[in-house]
Amino acid sequence: MPDPKRGREPADRTSRRSFLRGGLALGAAGAGVAAGRAVAAPAGTASPNLPPGVPEWSQSLGEGVVSRPYGRPSQFEADVVRRDVEWLTASRQSSVSFTPLHQLEGIITPNGLGFERHHGGIAEIDPAEHRLMIHGLVEKPLMLTLEDVKRFPRVNRIAFLECAANSGMEWKGAQLNGCQFTHGMVHCVMYTGVPLKRLLEEAGLKTNARWLLPEGADAAAMTRSVPIEKALDDAIVAYAMNGEALYPEHGYPLRLVLPGWQGNMWVKWLRRIKVGDEPWHTREETSKYTALMPDGLARRFTWAMDAKSVITNPSPQAALHRKGFTVLSGLAWSGRGAIRGVDVSLDGGRNWRPARLDGLVLDKALTRFYYEFDWSGEPLLLQSRAVDETGYVQPTKAALRRHRGLNSIYHNNGIQTWHVLPNGEIENVEVA
Amino acid sequence: MPDPKRGREPADRTSRRSFLRGGLALGAAGAGVAAGRAVAAPAGTASPNLPPGVPEWSQSLGEGVVSRPYGRPSQFEADVVRRDVEWLTASRQSSVSFTPLHQLEGIITPNGLGFERHHGGIAEIDPAEHRLMIHGLVEKPLMLTLEDVKRFPRVNRIAFLECAANSGMEWKGAQLNGCQFTHGMVHCVMYTGVPLKRLLEEAGLKTNARWLLPEGADAAAMTRSVPIEKALDDAIVAYAMNGEALYPEHGYPLRLVLPGWQGNMWVKWLRRIKVGDEPWHTREETSKYTALMPDGLARRFTWAMDAKSVITNPSPQAALHRKGFTVLSGLAWSGRGAIRGVDVSLDGGRNWRPARLDGLVLDKALTRFYYEFDWSGEPLLLQSRAVDETGYVQPTKAALRRHRGLNSIYHNNGIQTWHVLPNGEIENVEVA
Repeated sequence: MPDPKRGREPADRTSRRSFLRGGLALGAAGAGVAAGRAVAAPAGTASPNLPPGVPEWSQSLGEGVVSRPYGRPSQFEADVVRRDVEWLTASRQSSVSFTPLHQLEGIITPNGLGFERHHGGIAEIDPAEHRLMIHGLVEKPLMLTLEDVKRFPRVNRIAFLECAANSGMEWKGAQLNGCQFTHGMVHCVMYTGVPLKRLLEEAGLKTNARWLLPEGADAAAMTRSVPIEKALDDAIVAYAMNGEALYPEHGYPLRLVLPGWQGNMWVKWLRRIKVGDEPWHTREETSKYTALMPDGLARRFTWAMDAKSVITNPSPQAALHRKGFTVLSGLAWSGRGAIRGVDVSLDGGRNWRPARLDGLVLDKALTRFYYEFDWSGEPLLLQSRAVDETGYVQPTKAALRRHRGLNSIYHNNGIQTWHVLPNGEIENVEVA
Repeated sequence: MPDPKRGREPADRTSRRSFLRGGLALGAAGAGVAAGRAVAAPAGTASPNLPPGVPEWSQSLGEGVVSRPYGRPSQFEADVVRRDVEWLTASRQSSVSFTPLHQLEGIITPNGLGFERHHGGIAEIDPAEHRLMIHGLVEKPLMLTLEDVKRFPRVNRIAFLECAANSGMEWKGAQLNGCQFTHGMVHCVMYTGVPLKRLLEEAGLKTNARWLLPEGADAAAMTRSVPIEKALDDAIVAYAMNGEALYPEHGYPLRLVLPGWQGNMWVKWLRRIKVGDEPWHTREETSKYTALMPDGLARRFTWAMDAKSVITNPSPQAALHRKGFTVLSGLAWSGRGAIRGVDVSLDGGRNWRPARLDGLVLDKALTRFYYEFDWSGEPLLLQSRAVDETGYVQPTKAALRRHRGLNSIYHNNGIQTWHVLPNGEIENVEVA
C-alpha cells in the first residue's frame, strides 16, 4: 500500500468508480458455478462435494513440497525471459541481453531476469578457489577468500544498475520496438556485501591514494578507474542479490556495486582492486564508454546516470487490448538521488499530468509509477518525464542532441514516445 | 548503506579496527600473482598478457548472453534449497518445506526459496482458464479473468508471510536442529496486486457484509473466514512477487495477501471470495489453527503474528568455523508494525546488547539485524529478542507456556537459543 511518509499520496481519481464496464457482472446462471474450465470428472475421482464443471486442478492432488527444491515460474510464463538482439553485436560473448521490463511489476527484478552485459562470456567461478586481492598504494596488501570477505560487517541496499549504453540505439531516432530493447539494460535488486571502505581501511590507504582499479576474473579482465571518493562513500563489494548468492551472469561470487553509477564500472567476478594515485585510462574508459562531442572532444568519466523513466505498459510489446479504464505503468530512476515525481503525457508532450508513485521511493533505486485513464480508441503519444530530488528534469531527445550531437551511444536518458494506434498496437516513434 | 532516516544509526563499534588477524596480509611472494587456481594453459589459448597460474575462467570465453534466458544460481550453490522434514507429515501433498534462512542475506527472499505449505499439493493452473468469483452479500456479483484483475489500480508492498505453525515443534522443547527447520516457515517478498478494497467496491458491499470467505482452487479448496475490516484495510489480491508472476507453489496466478496475519489465511490459487455476515467456522479455523488452552477453551481467530526474531548465523546448520571477529546475523518481524529494535544475548539471556538494524526497516516486513563480536572459543548461548513499534517485547518460551500451556502448536514466537560449543558446532537448546 502507498505509504504517505515515503512517497506521494495517491491521487484518488479512481476511488469509488467502476473499473469494468459491461459484461463482467455475474449473471444469475453463472452464480452457482465454480470458476474454471469444465472437464469431465474421471470416474471415481471427483469429490462428491464439488459441483460438476470444476477444473482438473481442483479435483486431484498436485505435486508435493520440495518437488522443486529451488522453484521456478509456471509453465505458462515461459515467454517471460531475457532476450537479445542478434544483429546488435558480433558475438554473444561480448553482448547484451535485456530485462523484460514490460512483463515485470514493482521495483525488484528477479535474479533470473536481470539483464546481462558480458565482454568475455560468463565466468563460471569456483568460489573456493576465488580470491580478492587489494594492493597498490596500501600499507598491507590483502589476499582475501570469499569466507574472509564475509567476516566483515555487512550492509544491505536496494539499487538500480543501468548500463551506460541503455537506450543507446535510440540516439539517432526510434529503432527498437519494445521497452525491453530500448530500456531493458537496467535492473534493481537488494545487494548484500561489505562496504568497500571497510576493506580499504583493513588494507590501510597510503596518503597519496586517489584512484582504484577494480578488475574482473573473466576472460575480458574488465578494468575501470574509480575515484577514491566513491569507494569511501557508498561502494559495496557484494556477494548476494535479493538474498541469495549472485548468479554467475551477475558476477558470482563477488561484484562491485557503485550505486547510481554506470554499470560498466560495477566490475563482476571481482578479483583485484589496485590502489593508485591517478586513473589508468583503460580501454573501457577511453575508446569505449566515452562520447565524441560535436567539437571533437570526448566526454569521459561520465559516471552518474541522470534521471530517466520509461512507460513499460502499454508499450510496443504490450499492446492495449481493451478500451475503457487503463492502467499505465512505468519505471523511473536517477543516479543522483531519489525520484521526486514523474509526469505523463498522452499527447506527445503537450500536456502533462502527475503520475502516482507507488511502493518504496528509494535513493538510487527503480521507482514504480502509475497513471490511470480512460481510453476510447483514439491514437495516443505516450511519454513520461522524471524529476529527481536535485530538481533535474529528464530532457527530450532533441535537447540531448542539441548539447551532445549525434555521435553518442552512452547516456541517452531522453524522453521516450510510444504511439498507440486505434487498434491498440503500439510503435516506437519520435515526436518533433 | 544504512539510512539514518529509515533505521537506527549503526553502532560504530567496529570502525577502524582490524577484522582479520594474521595470515591474511599478502606476502611479497604472492603480491604479483593473480588470484585463483593455477592450471596449465591450453597451448595456444592463453593470453600473452596474463601471468602463468591464472584460473581457467580467466583464460577462455564463457557462455554468451541468453545461454539461460531465465537464469539460475551457480552450480556451486546447489545446497541452497528448500528442505522438508519427512517424518513431520503423513504425505508431501499436505506438508511443508522450509526456507533456508541460514543461507540467505538481506530481507528479500528469492521466489524459488520461499517456504511452501500445501494442503492438497501444488495446483498447476492455466491462467487463461482461471476465474475469480466475488459473490454473496454484494450488489453485483463478479466473475473476473486474470486480465480483468490487472485492469484495476495496483499497489506494491514488501511483506513477510509466516505460517502460524512456524516454530510449532518447539513448543515442548528444542527439537529441530537448524533455523531452517525451527523458523523457516517465513519469507518476505514485494507483492504487486489490486487492493481487495477496490474489488469489493466494484462488487458493492451490502450493508450487512461483515466477513469474507476466500477459497483456493487447489484440491484442498482451502477456506478461511476473514473479517471485513482487514479486507478494507491493507489486503491485496496479488499476482506478482518480486516483480514476476507468483510461482505455482505460491498460488499462481492469484493469492490473497493479508500483511502481518498468519499465512494460512493468505489463500493461494484464489478462485472465490464469498461475502457474508458471520464467520463460517471452517475446518482450518476450528480443528486446525486454534490452540487448546489449559482451561479447556480454545484460542481462535488468532490472526496477527506477534513480534519474533531468530539468529540465522551462526546457527546449527552454519557452525562457527573461525575464532576472532564474528558477524552474527538474524531476522526480526512483527505482524503489528515495524521492528523498533532487537537485542542479542551471548549468555542465554543474562546480558543483552542492542543489535544493529540494517537496510530497510518496514512495516510488517522482515528486518535484518547484526551484532558483531569477538569469539575466542568459549561456549555461548545465543539469543535474540525483538521489540516492535507497539512496545511489545518478544517473550521467552517459558513465559509463553505459563500463559498458554503445552497443547499449542501455533503462534510460538518465543526466544530461541543456540548453544555454541568450543569446537564451533552449534545445537538447538533451551535454557531454564
